[in-house]
This record gives sequence, C-alpha cells and structure tokens, in this order.
Amino acid sequence: MKARVHVMLKDGVLDPQGEAVRHALGALGFDGVGGVRQGKVIDLEIAATDAAAAEAEVRAMCEKLLANTVIERYDIEIG
Amino acid sequence: MKARVHVMLKDGVLDPQGEAVRHALGALGFDGVGGVRQGKVIDLEIAATDAAAAEAEVRAMCEKLLANTVIERYDIEIG
Repeated sequence: MKARVHVMLKDGVLDPQGEAVRHALGALGFDGVGGVRQGKVIDLEIAATDAAAAEAEVRAMCEKLLANTVIERYDIEIG
Repeated sequence: MKARVHVMLKDGVLDPQGEAVRHALGALGFDGVGGVRQGKVIDLEIAATDAAAAEAEVRAMCEKLLANTVIERYDIEIG
C-alpha cells in the first residue's frame, strides 16, 4: 500500500527556505508571489493492506522519525 | 490563488535521502517498508486569478528555478 506524507513547518515558524525561494522568484521576474512555504514530501510503500492500519503505522513513523512535531506538522494520504 | 508543487527525483535516480529514511525506519522496528522516496513540496500564494494562467506561471517557475529537470520531475496543483 502506498502512503504519502507531507511535512511542513507550522504556521508562525520562520521558513528560510521558503523565503529564499520567494526572493529568487522575484529576482527572476515573477511578480505577485506572496507567501512561499517549503516542506518535505515522503512517499512510502508499506506492507499493511488495511488502510486504517497503514495510517496508524505511518502516523507512528511521523511521530518517531519523519517530523519534528515541535515545529512541524504532517498530514498523511493513504492509497 | 494557491498553488502546490511537488518536486521528486525521477524514477531511476538514486535517492539517498529516501534510502536513509528507509534504513532508519527499519532500525526503529517498522518492518515491511519497501521503497521510500523523498522530495520537496512548495506552497505558493500567487496573484493570478485565472487557474490556467496560474498553472502556466508556476510551470515556468518550475522550469527556471524550482526543479532540476535533468533529474527531477514536478507536478502542480492549483486551487
């Protein structure tokens, strides 16, 4: 079963990567670009065949390894 | 208008970050994790109000800055 996890910095946490992208886009002539936030996307192939079990497993992975929940939030898509 | 861009390494391109995550998950006791691929997600707030124009602008951003199209592919969600 496939799972996709998005890990983004929480709102209010400074995102220097996103800011760098925003400045670079402006310098390239792309006007009208407001906020830019950059995060990680992680695609996993997992053995669980039940969607609920898969989501629980991926949630545990996020809490233990994939996200720093002090400053990052994550969301999980299964399927 | 909001846009979300996913930038992933193309299939066949070695993904050391994904491999590191896979090994770490195994070491933490998560068995049955097959392939892991890690990429970037970029959320943009852009001024264009027309979805087609917004997508064209974001596509240009990807080609010029956000993705290295030699080794990376991107996909764009508008709205």
